[in-house]
Amino acid sequence: MDEDTVEVIFQPCGRRGQVPKGSTIIEAAQLLGVGIEALCGGRHVCGKCKVRIDTGRNREYGIETKRESAGPWQTIESDHITPEERAAGCRLACIATAREDLLIYVPEESRPGKQVVSKAARPIPIDHDPAVKTYFLQLPEATLTDPIGDFERLSRALEARYALTGLSIDFLALRSLGRALRAGKWEVTVSVWMDREIIRVRPGKAGPNYGLAIDIGTTTIAAYLCDLNTMEVVATASMMNPQIQYGEDVISRINYCFDDPEGLHRMSDAVVDGLNTLIEQAVSEAARHTDRRISPADIEDVAVCGNTCMHHLLLQLDPEPLGSVPFTPANHSSLNIKAREFGLRVNPSANVYILPNIAGFVGGDNVGVILVEEPQKSEDTVLIIDIGTNGELVIGNRERMVCSTCSCATGPALEGAQIEFGVRAAPGAIERVTISPDTHEVDYKVVGRDAWLSYSKPEEMQTRGICGSAVLDTLAELFKAGIVAGSGAFIPEVETKRLRKNPDTEQKEFVLAWSAETVIGKDVVITQNDIRQIQLAKAAIYTGCKLMLRRINLQRPDRIKIAGAFGNHIDITQAMVLGLFPDCPPECVSSIGNAAGDGCRMALLDRKKRTEADRVARRVEHVELTLMEDFQENLIDAIHIPHMTDEFPHLKKKTKAG
Amino acid sequence: MDEDTVEVIFQPCGRRGQVPKGSTIIEAAQLLGVGIEALCGGRHVCGKCKVRIDTGRNREYGIETKRESAGPWQTIESDHITPEERAAGCRLACIATAREDLLIYVPEESRPGKQVVSKAARPIPIDHDPAVKTYFLQLPEATLTDPIGDFERLSRALEARYALTGLSIDFLALRSLGRALRAGKWEVTVSVWMDREIIRVRPGKAGPNYGLAIDIGTTTIAAYLCDLNTMEVVATASMMNPQIQYGEDVISRINYCFDDPEGLHRMSDAVVDGLNTLIEQAVSEAARHTDRRISPADIEDVAVCGNTCMHHLLLQLDPEPLGSVPFTPANHSSLNIKAREFGLRVNPSANVYILPNIAGFVGGDNVGVILVEEPQKSEDTVLIIDIGTNGELVIGNRERMVCSTCSCATGPALEGAQIEFGVRAAPGAIERVTISPDTHEVDYKVVGRDAWLSYSKPEEMQTRGICGSAVLDTLAELFKAGIVAGSGAFIPEVETKRLRKNPDTEQKEFVLAWSAETVIGKDVVITQNDIRQIQLAKAAIYTGCKLMLRRINLQRPDRIKIAGAFGNHIDITQAMVLGLFPDCPPECVSSIGNAAGDGCRMALLDRKKRTEADRVARRVEHVELTLMEDFQENLIDAIHIPHMTDEFPHLKKKTKAG
Repeated sequence: MDEDTVEVIFQPCGRRGQVPKGSTIIEAAQLLGVGIEALCGGRHVCGKCKVRIDTGRNREYGIETKRESAGPWQTIESDHITPEERAAGCRLACIATAREDLLIYVPEESRPGKQVVSKAARPIPIDHDPAVKTYFLQLPEATLTDPIGDFERLSRALEARYALTGLSIDFLALRSLGRALRAGKWEVTVSVWMDREIIRVRPGKAGPNYGLAIDIGTTTIAAYLCDLNTMEVVATASMMNPQIQYGEDVISRINYCFDDPEGLHRMSDAVVDGLNTLIEQAVSEAARHTDRRISPADIEDVAVCGNTCMHHLLLQLDPEPLGSVPFTPANHSSLNIKAREFGLRVNPSANVYILPNIAGFVGGDNVGVILVEEPQKSEDTVLIIDIGTNGELVIGNRERMVCSTCSCATGPALEGAQIEFGVRAAPGAIERVTISPDTHEVDYKVVGRDAWLSYSKPEEMQTRGICGSAVLDTLAELFKAGIVAGSGAFIPEVETKRLRKNPDTEQKEFVLAWSAETVIGKDVVITQNDIRQIQLAKAAIYTGCKLMLRRINLQRPDRIKIAGAFGNHIDITQAMVLGLFPDCPPECVSSIGNAAGDGCRMALLDRKKRTEADRVARRVEHVELTLMEDFQENLIDAIHIPHMTDEFPHLKKKTKAG
Repeated sequence: MDEDTVEVIFQPCGRRGQVPKGSTIIEAAQLLGVGIEALCGGRHVCGKCKVRIDTGRNREYGIETKRESAGPWQTIESDHITPEERAAGCRLACIATAREDLLIYVPEESRPGKQVVSKAARPIPIDHDPAVKTYFLQLPEATLTDPIGDFERLSRALEARYALTGLSIDFLALRSLGRALRAGKWEVTVSVWMDREIIRVRPGKAGPNYGLAIDIGTTTIAAYLCDLNTMEVVATASMMNPQIQYGEDVISRINYCFDDPEGLHRMSDAVVDGLNTLIEQAVSEAARHTDRRISPADIEDVAVCGNTCMHHLLLQLDPEPLGSVPFTPANHSSLNIKAREFGLRVNPSANVYILPNIAGFVGGDNVGVILVEEPQKSEDTVLIIDIGTNGELVIGNRERMVCSTCSCATGPALEGAQIEFGVRAAPGAIERVTISPDTHEVDYKVVGRDAWLSYSKPEEMQTRGICGSAVLDTLAELFKAGIVAGSGAFIPEVETKRLRKNPDTEQKEFVLAWSAETVIGKDVVITQNDIRQIQLAKAAIYTGCKLMLRRINLQRPDRIKIAGAFGNHIDITQAMVLGLFPDCPPECVSSIGNAAGDGCRMALLDRKKRTEADRVARRVEHVELTLMEDFQENLIDAIHIPHMTDEFPHLKKKTKAG
């Protein structure tokens, strides 16, 4: 055993191994592949990474752990760990270190759940004009009177038969050309990229070829495997972005790169590994559901979109300049990079098309949204709110388009990551809530169980926390039930045992689920602070919309589209109750799902969209909201819940009716 | 110890290791990095790879070797090994196998000597227009009012300042762009390839950048490291082509690929490793001789030429079709491939330019020769004979150009590899010979010793064999001394103890060096068979020239240029005595050294030559000599030594005078 390493065992998963002495427990977990939530990226602020050091001699593992083996207690830990928890051995995994051998228990609430990610492909009209097209050719055999080289023979035929001129050939495709020609007895199927480069030559009449559209979100990665000839989506696959272990949001990941010289490399590797897993998943799914046996080599084209930071982390471009004024990206324009350049396990000769960036925080995912929704071709003014981990806004019409990001990462609050009992949309997560205005009693539904609480025994709920779709619900219901005032404060006069003061924090909180209904052994509550977080997020979105409307001299948009994972489960009326976005007739508000992924798929299947993407990315004006002089003032005004004022006539009518 | 491996020890170098049981001794030597000559590529024909199995227990190494441990004797070995040698334990390393532990002695004559390779750069006029040019830029710093991305900021400035438009950027250059801009406080030196692609950005005003011209010969690789701004050759380096261990000539290497599925991979790796060693050598030489500290990253451009087979083996293109009718190459046109694609240790973003091929056996090296000599611009008809390992011929003028390869690998015979006592031009190799017509006595000079035999004690000569430059000399001297007839046969009437019959082979031979003068313990002779080989090679060259002249309807060329390593040391008069090439006034025959390498250097430093290279490669007509109906007849006629007939008026005059 090396003197500079110590042994660490994680429970309940039983993963064990040697780690460098002095590693934080988060680092040890990452080394051994154990999942621990680190939503703040190990910056000691989220308190989600609580673990328990189990002291004493453990006979099963033959290890002896002392309390001091995890390093000294730090005062900042008291912000998240109660004295009782501390007495029981609890520590923050981002602070405690492995000084000697450790046996560590990771409690349920600190483990990342198996995320239920649903990013199905939407039917959208797409022109069939893929970047990679295949051509079948019968070539004259090489003879002594016509001994011209293989590549020139192929080029000559492609020109004569299909009028393709001036083609180059990918280096690896050239390597396999000779064998393909001879194996096919001079009959071959040729894949040509952008009428420009031969990327693959297969013997004889070959089967279909495929393309992959990938949307790399901060939290979720979704991939659509498409038949390039029929445009059919033959498989979809999605997963958590594996970079999440290094930080929940864009800023945490930029900081991680800044703090650790290996950070960029590590995160880039993580996402590429993730993409490769996703490719395997998609191929297996296609085999299972469509009987297609697709080899990764058959995936001959890839289109990728993501926000500017995801773009940089994938391509291993230094994201540091994105993290500070003036938020400059490494590049805007789209890129074509060989799959082999970053180890993507598709056909190594495939050109990976990366959608262009608009600005430091508005990336190719937003360009994708614009490709699908086409505000630039619309007479009406369209407001598109894309709430993933960040909130991104595009507003415009055929005259003018502006975009911006919301002033704070709206996703984490609205998705639950920044609220105390926030969890991801995994089984046991509260996803719908109603609160009675009369009794102030709560009814709710959890992911993975059809029956609401009122139709269940408490112990059947197996509740773990609150997920994104219930966050807005909860606040809107609290407001409508008269428990929370327009200011966001709990109304002291309300009489229910659910509203109480937390003895440790002195903070008011409202109980959504009693301990008996949960698997975490305590009540699931929403706190005054949680409400502030939600208010801040909704104010950021509202303020962004308002200031951008002003920038293009309009009062209100004609249509509102809600994109992103969040848009899929938003209750539009509740959102309007809270004043999440400017007033608009409810019938003009719609949810468009993962529009970024759809736009990426468009760019995959219709190469004209690639030209358009660069044009659009250059044309959209980017607004840095926080630089507008009355931004703060507007943000503070928007913190309030709107009281059904005249500012929201449609909502007033609606809630009156409802 | 693995049951499937055996231990092998090579003497006198002392290299030892485990090899798979059943490996041939040649394979074992390759595995352990021990040099054994295998001129025929292990095809059991050259007999150069003689080794001695030392039987019995060796105390020093603690190994016991039995005679049968090297596998059964095969009758073909008797062609090369005398019964006495056999009794002493001699075997052919390409036949004997390692069945059990072996102690093997590699005799002096079977070891590849340290080759003296001299391929200095010739002064040739070159236009300064390199593919990679550098530009210094002072950029406006990114601010909130001008937050455009790094790449676009750079492009904008390159367009404004240097009118370069539509540039792309190499993926790795993009990765380092942000840091370079900020480290240089927005002042940078940018390297742009072909006005098209940014390949490197360095902070501030950066030092010179470099380019490398590489000529990959079948036997020798030469590299010229050039300052891209001054065009100065700052270092030259050369080495044996490491592929030589897999076969001496092109055909042996093609066969090696055919026989071993890993062969292509292995040879490609070998040459890339070799190039990387050469790059290190060149960089050290530059440091030693010019005080320049050049990092491999400073080598931003590379141009490579080689014959079609070397081209294929470098790029890992299957060479099999080159080995059989109709000798079709994978491609003709020039290629640009990123250095990182094949692991060349220069700047990984550099584009390696590969000169185009003309035909299956006439490659980019010949295109290089044409770039330098420009027959396509000449009023006169120029015949260029490039004798490296193969003989390649180009003849033409501004009207028409034809090329071909000689019908056999002329190099090995003329360079000595195919003659019994042929060795490379290493110390101890006979390089000049004179024979007295009166006494039939021999005088000679060896590489590495200034004094001729007549001025030395016999034991001072340390003779090892005959190298290329003495081969033609010897035959011409034998002919002029009346020892060999015009037919090539030894004249029986000649009385000298040097002319004798070998008792084993019943073949006549002429002693050039007595045993006492050698380090190999036996007489160095030239045999009747050796003379046949030389005659065949010279006939092949002469016939090629003659048939190509006929093809363009000319009697004789206006000028003859001899290129290649062989050209450097050829004695033009002796070559004319033997009838190596068509008659021409001696003052119109010149040696042009490594013209292929010079042409490659031109393409490196003047990008217009790259366009011209493709044009020339398409324009030259390739003639397959062996398909001409009277080829055999002509070849047989040319076997004879010309007897100073009217066919060679210039020679007649010359030898009369001399």
